[in-house]
Amino acid sequence: MACSKYEYVKKFEQESILLPNTYVVIRIDGRGFHKFCESHNFEKPNDERAIHLMNRCASHVMELTTDVMLSYGQSDEYSFILKRDSTLFGRRASKIESSLVSLFASCFVFYWKDFFPDLSLKYPPCFDSRSVCYPTFENLYDYLCWRQVDCHINNLYNTTFWALVQQGGMSPLDAENKLKGTLSNTKNEILFTQFNINYNNLPAIFRKGSILIWKEVKEVVKTNPDGTSVSR
Amino acid sequence: MACSKYEYVKKFEQESILLPNTYVVIRIDGRGFHKFCESHNFEKPNDERAIHLMNRCASHVMELTTDVMLSYGQSDEYSFILKRDSTLFGRRASKIESSLVSLFASCFVFYWKDFFPDLSLKYPPCFDSRSVCYPTFENLYDYLCWRQVDCHINNLYNTTFWALVQQGGMSPLDAENKLKGTLSNTKNEILFTQFNINYNNLPAIFRKGSILIWKEVKEVVKTNPDGTSVSR
Amino acid sequence: MACSKYEYVKKFEQESILLPNTYVVIRIDGRGFHKFCESHNFEKPNDERAIHLMNRCASHVMELTTDVMLSYGQSDEYSFILKRDSTLFGRRASKIESSLVSLFASCFVFYWKDFFPDLSLKYPPCFDSRSVCYPTFENLYDYLCWRQVDCHINNLYNTTFWALVQQGGMSPLDAENKLKGTLSNTKNEILFTQFNINYNNLPAIFRKGSILIWKEVKEVVKTNPDGTSVSR
Amino acid sequence: MACSKYEYVKKFEQESILLPNTYVVIRIDGRGFHKFCESHNFEKPNDERAIHLMNRCASHVMELTTDVMLSYGQSDEYSFILKRDSTLFGRRASKIESSLVSLFASCFVFYWKDFFPDLSLKYPPCFDSRSVCYPTFENLYDYLCWRQVDCHINNLYNTTFWALVQQGGMSPLDAENKLKGTLSNTKNEILFTQFNINYNNLPAIFRKGSILIWKEVKEVVKTNPDGTSVSR
Repeated sequence: MACSKYEYVKKFEQESILLPNTYVVIRIDGRGFHKFCESHNFEKPNDERAIHLMNRCASHVMELTTDVMLSYGQSDEYSFILKRDSTLFGRRASKIESSLVSLFASCFVFYWKDFFPDLSLKYPPCFDSRSVCYPTFENLYDYLCWRQVDCHINNLYNTTFWALVQQGGMSPLDAENKLKGTLSNTKNEILFTQFNINYNNLPAIFRKGSILIWKEVKEVVKTNPDGTSVSR
Repeated sequence: MACSKYEYVKKFEQESILLPNTYVVIRIDGRGFHKFCESHNFEKPNDERAIHLMNRCASHVMELTTDVMLSYGQSDEYSFILKRDSTLFGRRASKIESSLVSLFASCFVFYWKDFFPDLSLKYPPCFDSRSVCYPTFENLYDYLCWRQVDCHINNLYNTTFWALVQQGGMSPLDAENKLKGTLSNTKNEILFTQFNINYNNLPAIFRKGSILIWKEVKEVVKTNPDGTSVSR
Repeated sequence: MACSKYEYVKKFEQESILLPNTYVVIRIDGRGFHKFCESHNFEKPNDERAIHLMNRCASHVMELTTDVMLSYGQSDEYSFILKRDSTLFGRRASKIESSLVSLFASCFVFYWKDFFPDLSLKYPPCFDSRSVCYPTFENLYDYLCWRQVDCHINNLYNTTFWALVQQGGMSPLDAENKLKGTLSNTKNEILFTQFNINYNNLPAIFRKGSILIWKEVKEVVKTNPDGTSVSR
Repeated sequence: MACSKYEYVKKFEQESILLPNTYVVIRIDGRGFHKFCESHNFEKPNDERAIHLMNRCASHVMELTTDVMLSYGQSDEYSFILKRDSTLFGRRASKIESSLVSLFASCFVFYWKDFFPDLSLKYPPCFDSRSVCYPTFENLYDYLCWRQVDCHINNLYNTTFWALVQQGGMSPLDAENKLKGTLSNTKNEILFTQFNINYNNLPAIFRKGSILIWKEVKEVVKTNPDGTSVSR
């Protein structure tokens, strides 16, 4: 066939296969989302519409990728966890990373209007992704803790920062300097004494992020003549 | 800091760096586009609106990724070529592959309505991507030939197949059987004698695909007091 | 410094890091050992001197690489198993594979005369090596079973083959044809009925291979004035 | 077959293939050679016997690996360069790195007595190896320059250091301090004025290292009846 002369170029492709029998995490991360949030006037410190849009995208990805056993989102990032024995795309790293991130990104634009009905999307967003193998459940658990601690630290900071700016009338620079090097309890105290905010009473979705898991659903598969039904 | 206990999980990340001083091709490929075309009643054998949408996405990607020196598209795939000395994202394979494919996918949804004003997008599309290094210009050139020959072979087949079905009234199965194992000249002859189509006169965009390159533009940077201008 | 102009070439080096928290197996394998055995008139089906030489090399490697928790040898191969938490050479695959295999090979020549005092080494041997990560103890266990089953199958075959040739007077080709496609019990029966050999009574080192493990050793660290000693 | 139950463990092996159409450098490096030289009382700053032993090993490796087009050695390291189109071991990195380094190491012990007839080898040496791809001849050339500049810098330093110690009666520490931060011309001057040594007249094998290349050899393949011969 005519194309055989050039087909040798396929040999330059190098496949990276994710180690079998490990949990695979694919983490998707917004690129340039600071500017993206500014451009679309996202609410500070958290925009619930954006969080629900991210969750909608993740649930779409999960519905089409049943090997994802759990996913966790916070801020502009989402982690998808493949079960140990997944053979998705032959565990080829590039294929898995690229398929999930491109689907997530196209969902983001597709579902935008459901969460921002009055605000048109100004430009198409961009995400990157990476995949990481974890050999034990303990490592995977620690991975999720790592992301959740990150969520907590950033959200506590942002909540305090924006309280100082929005309610306290501080300039962003002054707020930044005031918070520099402070520990959690200082921020909690500022929120409570200055703004009467008990951080722990804020919505969990802001403080802890979102988790998506599969729910077993009973489905009626047959209705018996006597009116009873068989479900599974 | 509180997160340090879990941060060890970062050590499980493995970076794959693309060999320096090589041309890097990132090829994006539609996943499940046969079904996608069916669902959206794309015209056969080629839907010009879809081709122009793909080209619009590719040009958006190029505008934001100036290290792409050239890109080539055909069917539901697009190849972006980074110049040899590109240091984009430190030449990290995952970062490059995922950023380009996610931007392409979100562009596809974003620009959809500009090319399909009367047809709403039914579901978000998905693409995969891979990166390949080519050490010489000759190898790169052969890569582009490989994709263009692929375009030619598929388009000649599809053009003949759909002529037989749409104009010749054949069933898809009969058309498939008639074409099985035929060479180019047989297909050219069928097109010419049965349907009065000279294949070589069909639009080049169908037969050869699309290439995007940078064009040097003279831009007025200063207007002199005497009315003349300085451009670069 | 003068060399800086060329130092950029270091950037072309690509490190492959073995996934943390996994068991790492480095398997060393003789290259061209069929010919090597012929050249040195090794005894058939097993040459005890060669086995003990291999074991000597492996124990030398283990003494210098205390992260090796266990090693297993059979035929012309040896597997070294690093403990999960080993940070040997920063878990760089090339460094680990090459250091172990080169030390093994130089030991092979160095210790040769201790096991073959009357036979001089005709030419330097060559081995290759590879490293594999196993995420669970079960996978590692199955790896060792895999190699041991390989040992058993080959040794049963070789024992029967050489009995037919050496004691039965068959030509190698006739022996090969006779054994083609036979199961274990057929070979056991040939050995027993024709040659009065009970395979299970043959030395375990031939049938099962060799395992090297660390042994806790009590060492006298102090002798008390009363003549008793303190050990650890 | 009995082993099939365990054979799944082979799937954990990951092959790294060296990019086609690039020059591959395999660099072998002595491990712990400072101590090795001390143990064997190597002459300072250079031991010619050791250099010739290294060269003998490299030439043995080249004879068995005809894809090596050139090799370069200095100090306790050796670089082997595979031609661009080599398909040695399917360009599998581990196989190439490990085979070459193990053969080199076993040669080192094997040929030891030819170069150190009066000195017995005290313990088996160890080397590591790595492979690097260079896409252009210019990159490869710069690689060789990099290693040769390294040879020059180290040799000039060592020559001056040992002149100060051996002929100048300085303590090693004093010599080290005297040379700290000095440029080439200072060292040249010390050698010339204090020890009457013109560095550029020292043997090139010390100053520049060793290169092994293939030499075309005319071989008589047929002798004609008239006494003339045909060679190729």
